[in-house]
Amino acid sequence: MPAIEDSGVVVLGWWVSMFTTRVRIALAEKGISYEYIEEDIPNKSPLLLKHNPIYKKVPVLIHKGKPICESLIIVQYIHETWKEGYPLLPSDPYLKSQAAFWADYIDKHIYQVVKLTWDSKGEEMQKRVEEFLGYLKVLERELGEKPYFNGESFGFVDMALICYYSHIIAFGKIGNFSVEKDTPKLFAWATQCLKRESVSKALADPNKIYELLIEIRKKNGLED
Amino acid sequence: MPAIEDSGVVVLGWWVSMFTTRVRIALAEKGISYEYIEEDIPNKSPLLLKHNPIYKKVPVLIHKGKPICESLIIVQYIHETWKEGYPLLPSDPYLKSQAAFWADYIDKHIYQVVKLTWDSKGEEMQKRVEEFLGYLKVLERELGEKPYFNGESFGFVDMALICYYSHIIAFGKIGNFSVEKDTPKLFAWATQCLKRESVSKALADPNKIYELLIEIRKKNGLED
Repeated sequence: MPAIEDSGVVVLGWWVSMFTTRVRIALAEKGISYEYIEEDIPNKSPLLLKHNPIYKKVPVLIHKGKPICESLIIVQYIHETWKEGYPLLPSDPYLKSQAAFWADYIDKHIYQVVKLTWDSKGEEMQKRVEEFLGYLKVLERELGEKPYFNGESFGFVDMALICYYSHIIAFGKIGNFSVEKDTPKLFAWATQCLKRESVSKALADPNKIYELLIEIRKKNGLED
Repeated sequence: MPAIEDSGVVVLGWWVSMFTTRVRIALAEKGISYEYIEEDIPNKSPLLLKHNPIYKKVPVLIHKGKPICESLIIVQYIHETWKEGYPLLPSDPYLKSQAAFWADYIDKHIYQVVKLTWDSKGEEMQKRVEEFLGYLKVLERELGEKPYFNGESFGFVDMALICYYSHIIAFGKIGNFSVEKDTPKLFAWATQCLKRESVSKALADPNKIYELLIEIRKKNGLED
């Protein structure tokens, strides 16, 4: 009997990881069924350590026994491997380069939302919340009046950003900001994205993320 | 008469920038002629500010009036736009994902070589030199006995790494390490890469990079 990772499609993930969410959205959009293995992050599995020896991080997509790491690279791999079905990236090289640019921008700037909630409070946090809102507003300007970042249809940049949404909502409760009030166009966009089953099924419950963040903040001495 | 940036292929670059070097290597491998505009970094041109309003950084590739930013994204764009000629990326999605993984690793870890030389000295620098050599050794292991990262032919990962070479050599003179002695396989690989005209013509003179680094270190109070 072949080992689980040698057959079909396997995702090693963690429910808290927005990057896992991103990969699950992409697979759902393509209609690909897969085996999902939830990692116990404090006790990473031998499978994870074997298949991502460099970073030892989720998500890892294992396809026909071969691992692919880093979520944006995984989404691109899914796009190129399962050419049929919903296109995850534009075919035009220029539009593709613009989608790659904004997805990279999101990971460079929005990822700090996690770090922010882990290690700051008071004035320091408020200063960094302002900075964070600045990045969100750049994204809101880029979205403009379009329903989705790529235009009329849900695509790469939408996938890249919506996977952070539960974290952003939870962070807003701690950092006193509101996506709805502070970036209303992004709020409308997120509301549209959440209507997709691929998204609503993959996103973590923001209340659970909030509880986890509070737990981490307590451990780090930032909350009573 | 159309503006310069509206016609053909234009690169906005800076001789010190390894990311500019990377784009120039890719264009040379494809045999694409282009207009090169050297930026005066302390006084960035209106053309640069217009075409990279988010980061205001070089390199920018302007093709038919449209800007593409971020060097790895630019190389992928070149690969997809000029399909004829030397392939910059593998066509197989899995091999492509592995090339993307390592190029990303290089930019995550090797880029610190610049920062290292700008802001540390003494024991702090030695500690960080060790860390840096650790990353180089991971890359050396990945290269293994292959002539190039992608196998038999010069490709995406080679382009991603060789563009740092002059900086690494200059940094070695400051941080007391030697690519030749500390990572001999990488040295042999680099020597092979430097035989390519695309590389030797695009790389900055390491002595000039060294002089510039010493100048910056003096300004930052790290050298007498």
